[in-house]
Amino acid sequence: MIIVTRKGVTDAEIDHIRERVERLGLRTHLSRGEERTIIGCVGDEERLRSVPLATLPGVEAVHEVQRPYKLASRDFDARGASTVAVGDGTIGDGAFLVIAGPCSVEGREMMLKTARHVREQGARALRGGAFKPRTSPYSFRGLGEEGLKILSEVRAETGLPVVTEVMDTRQVELVASYADVLQVGARNMQNFALLTEVGRVQRPVLLKRGMSATVKDLLLAAEYVMAQGNPDVILCERGIRTFATATRNTFDLAAIPVLKRETHLPVLADPSHAGGSRPLVPPLAYAAVAAGADGLMVEVHPEPETATSDGEQSLDFPEFTEFMKGLAPFLEVVGKRTATAG
Amino acid sequence: MIIVTRKGVTDAEIDHIRERVERLGLRTHLSRGEERTIIGCVGDEERLRSVPLATLPGVEAVHEVQRPYKLASRDFDARGASTVAVGDGTIGDGAFLVIAGPCSVEGREMMLKTARHVREQGARALRGGAFKPRTSPYSFRGLGEEGLKILSEVRAETGLPVVTEVMDTRQVELVASYADVLQVGARNMQNFALLTEVGRVQRPVLLKRGMSATVKDLLLAAEYVMAQGNPDVILCERGIRTFATATRNTFDLAAIPVLKRETHLPVLADPSHAGGSRPLVPPLAYAAVAAGADGLMVEVHPEPETATSDGEQSLDFPEFTEFMKGLAPFLEVVGKRTATAG
Amino acid sequence: MIIVTRKGVTDAEIDHIRERVERLGLRTHLSRGEERTIIGCVGDEERLRSVPLATLPGVEAVHEVQRPYKLASRDFDARGASTVAVGDGTIGDGAFLVIAGPCSVEGREMMLKTARHVREQGARALRGGAFKPRTSPYSFRGLGEEGLKILSEVRAETGLPVVTEVMDTRQVELVASYADVLQVGARNMQNFALLTEVGRVQRPVLLKRGMSATVKDLLLAAEYVMAQGNPDVILCERGIRTFATATRNTFDLAAIPVLKRETHLPVLADPSHAGGSRPLVPPLAYAAVAAGADGLMVEVHPEPETATSDGEQSLDFPEFTEFMKGLAPFLEVVGKRTATAG
Amino acid sequence: MIIVTRKGVTDAEIDHIRERVERLGLRTHLSRGEERTIIGCVGDEERLRSVPLATLPGVEAVHEVQRPYKLASRDFDARGASTVAVGDGTIGDGAFLVIAGPCSVEGREMMLKTARHVREQGARALRGGAFKPRTSPYSFRGLGEEGLKILSEVRAETGLPVVTEVMDTRQVELVASYADVLQVGARNMQNFALLTEVGRVQRPVLLKRGMSATVKDLLLAAEYVMAQGNPDVILCERGIRTFATATRNTFDLAAIPVLKRETHLPVLADPSHAGGSRPLVPPLAYAAVAAGADGLMVEVHPEPETATSDGEQSLDFPEFTEFMKGLAPFLEVVGKRTATAG
Repeated sequence: MIIVTRKGVTDAEIDHIRERVERLGLRTHLSRGEERTIIGCVGDEERLRSVPLATLPGVEAVHEVQRPYKLASRDFDARGASTVAVGDGTIGDGAFLVIAGPCSVEGREMMLKTARHVREQGARALRGGAFKPRTSPYSFRGLGEEGLKILSEVRAETGLPVVTEVMDTRQVELVASYADVLQVGARNMQNFALLTEVGRVQRPVLLKRGMSATVKDLLLAAEYVMAQGNPDVILCERGIRTFATATRNTFDLAAIPVLKRETHLPVLADPSHAGGSRPLVPPLAYAAVAAGADGLMVEVHPEPETATSDGEQSLDFPEFTEFMKGLAPFLEVVGKRTATAG
Repeated sequence: MIIVTRKGVTDAEIDHIRERVERLGLRTHLSRGEERTIIGCVGDEERLRSVPLATLPGVEAVHEVQRPYKLASRDFDARGASTVAVGDGTIGDGAFLVIAGPCSVEGREMMLKTARHVREQGARALRGGAFKPRTSPYSFRGLGEEGLKILSEVRAETGLPVVTEVMDTRQVELVASYADVLQVGARNMQNFALLTEVGRVQRPVLLKRGMSATVKDLLLAAEYVMAQGNPDVILCERGIRTFATATRNTFDLAAIPVLKRETHLPVLADPSHAGGSRPLVPPLAYAAVAAGADGLMVEVHPEPETATSDGEQSLDFPEFTEFMKGLAPFLEVVGKRTATAG
Repeated sequence: MIIVTRKGVTDAEIDHIRERVERLGLRTHLSRGEERTIIGCVGDEERLRSVPLATLPGVEAVHEVQRPYKLASRDFDARGASTVAVGDGTIGDGAFLVIAGPCSVEGREMMLKTARHVREQGARALRGGAFKPRTSPYSFRGLGEEGLKILSEVRAETGLPVVTEVMDTRQVELVASYADVLQVGARNMQNFALLTEVGRVQRPVLLKRGMSATVKDLLLAAEYVMAQGNPDVILCERGIRTFATATRNTFDLAAIPVLKRETHLPVLADPSHAGGSRPLVPPLAYAAVAAGADGLMVEVHPEPETATSDGEQSLDFPEFTEFMKGLAPFLEVVGKRTATAG
Repeated sequence: MIIVTRKGVTDAEIDHIRERVERLGLRTHLSRGEERTIIGCVGDEERLRSVPLATLPGVEAVHEVQRPYKLASRDFDARGASTVAVGDGTIGDGAFLVIAGPCSVEGREMMLKTARHVREQGARALRGGAFKPRTSPYSFRGLGEEGLKILSEVRAETGLPVVTEVMDTRQVELVASYADVLQVGARNMQNFALLTEVGRVQRPVLLKRGMSATVKDLLLAAEYVMAQGNPDVILCERGIRTFATATRNTFDLAAIPVLKRETHLPVLADPSHAGGSRPLVPPLAYAAVAAGADGLMVEVHPEPETATSDGEQSLDFPEFTEFMKGLAPFLEVVGKRTATAG
């Protein structure tokens, strides 16, 4: 931490600040300017985070020096780029993964049809929600365990690993018993109890960025999971909430290269939620690839206009075929390879 | 819903749209303009929400007509203003409630001291976190059940009802067995599993607005709780996340009168989190009163600079005394009465 | 400035950074941590602002120490609170000013009627736009000089000083020859040519905060005006643009006490534009008073539903009468006096 | 417009609303629901925009049907994609343009060197500011006319057309006499006097999106220029202001495909301002290409660390060479051709 004092700070105030810092085992270093004094704190910044430095008499500003995340930081991995296994494939460090499927698991037939189609076009994981977070309590909230069973049957038939959301600490074990990857949704990105719980199981976690989460918040959420012993976190940019209303969310594309610089974890983009409309899926997805994403999660539905949720942003089968055809040359330019078929 | 068609929509497209709407039991009503046709849908809009109308061929825009919340809407209550009992007192419909106390329960002594002080100054409920949502996994996360016990002991000694946060569906019963009001924090405002669970217990719920939640989102979150049979929801404006960084959050003061117009539920303001700094607590709190708030939640700590969390924004005892003195004339102007002592 | 170096910074990089800083006449002060070094720069920070310190090899972060505004800063005024004369009255340092009138000057009769009504109720300045900034080129853009003439005639008849917007550097002299206060609108808050030009005339400037301006941006805009020799700047909070759409803008109420702490300049609130709707004007206005505002600017129109602009947010005469009645007790609580009649 | 009435609206209120609409020459069409009535207004919506419909008694909501821009709308151009000539080259409809150069014109030598370098690498227009909008009045504000002269000399030597900012209505003629393209900066996007003035000269206008401008606002700003008779507007996405602070602005990538769907005008991206840092320029630029941009504007400086402004985000020569090399394969994938050399 760096502490900047107010104009006219007294020596007693400076002494008091230093005393508070040094009591926690850090050293302080003074740099006196004409009006303000800068107090550099040397040592483990973590211990200082609980101290309300800004409220000590004489303090004007406090600046962090060290990053608050460790396991998630790029430095933590020798290569600077870790990989996460998803079924037989992987994501990260040059391996590109397309996850596709409907918003909700609506039935066995539609899941199987969708899985076969997306696998044929090059997707290497299947998404589908059994427990659905819905803004209104009156909306369809998913098939629950029945949906999980369908997902695992479809995996058995198609070989595609399954990505599905978990919303409740009490369901983590259940969902983990069916799914290959546990998804934590945007609205639960700071549900710390849930983060802790998914950190305790041996399943990769796909962590979606919250609508008002900064990059630092997202990395701290990943740190929660990792701190429990689960290193397999995949991050996902899916748009943030801003004043711009031409799209469902504002796709923060720059977060992708920023994350690649800050963390070794693989970074996915979700162009379906970011744009909220079918025609925006290809441009947003291709842009994510150009910006360095390690994978994509795309909503696909056999008949979007009958979908129980997110029909507006789900590609139909011919659209997904086109989409994947358009994706290939971009992957070639960035030199990434898609996972081989399961 | 009102559906606006694209320029050049065909009759077949219009027929298809009408057919989709009418199949769900609503009637449609056409209004043909020069370039676009407007299709009014008459009947229960709820049934239409799952249909991805915007994706039907020929559709340009879809506008909601009915509000998606019912139990929370102002019309639902005969008076337009419900009250919620908090201990022996109430909040709402003219009764003003001040909830005060530290961010975290740090020990029995500090809680008791704080409770006595805030009660003396006119607070009628005690806040204090036993389970703490923390951005970093390495921060202090509360005393847990030990903290709950302290809270109930302090209630026994002071008569102050206790408000404390619940973060995990598995803790709802436990927390409800100690607390008078269950707080759902900003980060969990769309933790739908938690909302459902607190809707099942017989305890008032203090629901804080999420950092990126619209007023509609907040009311739908309240609807989740109420739809389970728990009518006692208190809403809390605590600041939203915007580009403005001079304060910890941006206090959306106008949300208070907007909420008072939209819902019968009582509306609290939390000037401590909204401003994030001690000197901002009084102006924000008094402004909330002037704008129609039914109560305030204020962080108070015997020695803010040693607080384990939120020390920057916690008033010390003399500051809280001053604060309450300053509050009284504003309450008089708006004609609200504070709850009488427990 | 404080410069924080990257992990693994080399001595040569540190030397290079110091050399760049010291060449501009500042001294540097090193504080070596385990991984990073902190370089404090002592002296006139202004000289450093043009140097792209963040791009120097080895630099990780740069933090400002000094505020970039001087004339506008609170320290610059001995009392910490300056006043600005508006006609015969003043605003600031305890003197409260209500400015009222229609969005646009639509004609002589309606201006005169409005002026008389608002004066009778206690307003001490008249607003009215002759040159109107309109989002669409096809909207009514004001009466121009004809509108200015009407304003000055109405002033002659009622004694109310006149506040009107200037949008073009070429009109500054013209507008200044008619108006008592020059308003710079939100969309021109960073029109630096205009700020410079209004700084050159001897007329108070009412500077509205831009929709995406931080408090610092607003104070730097004031500094532009003041740096030209015009000390009479009144700041105005009128809402910012955020994701929250229940109101036209998001009224950043906390900006009022933050500004009062940062600057000696008087601070107005504009509840009409902030809320964008008539029923929100009173609660937002009263809240602004409770939070420390020095005045209010309120839109009033004899018949809002025929207004050429902003009818949605304009009070009619009976509403304004009620509004002013409701305002008085709040002013009494905060101990502010309205300007005496002109 | 579509007008939705409140629950319990009276027939007299409905009649009054219809009367107000029909008086302006539109027809109304009623659709009565159970609780609310929908009034469709058929005819030229433009005439209704000045009527404060939302404030009429009985009105709950008002929805626009027609777009408020005409000349800028995609329908206005037969092909749906217009081109703008920039020097000997063009931008739009498949022709891709890279504009490069320093933030500010600092001198003849540096401009000439930069122009030669960027031309060699494939840029087909030169940027450089002679009049600089600076947040602080104490920062370097450009060489003024001297800078314009340098730009035109460098054009004479290199053949590169020149893009430079105009900030003041009084300078439009002067700048137009030197420059090939007039840039209107983000802070002046709603400086309507300036938009009107640049609409009157025969020079293409590069219009940057304001930091809090929606896509609709941007298109209305373009409409201002076009309504004066100047059809040659190039739009530029350069990032918006949001809570996300890991980058200087939030690059709203999705605005590019949204604009391509809404307007026939060419769309540029400015990855330098969007990201605010050198390493982010390539990923943001390539993403913009993948998303459909018609060109890029990139800051390049011979020695960024000595730049008088924007050094943090300016590429040096070797970086620009790399950047252009990396760009080529993306252009190939999207099937766009760069303008041929001047």
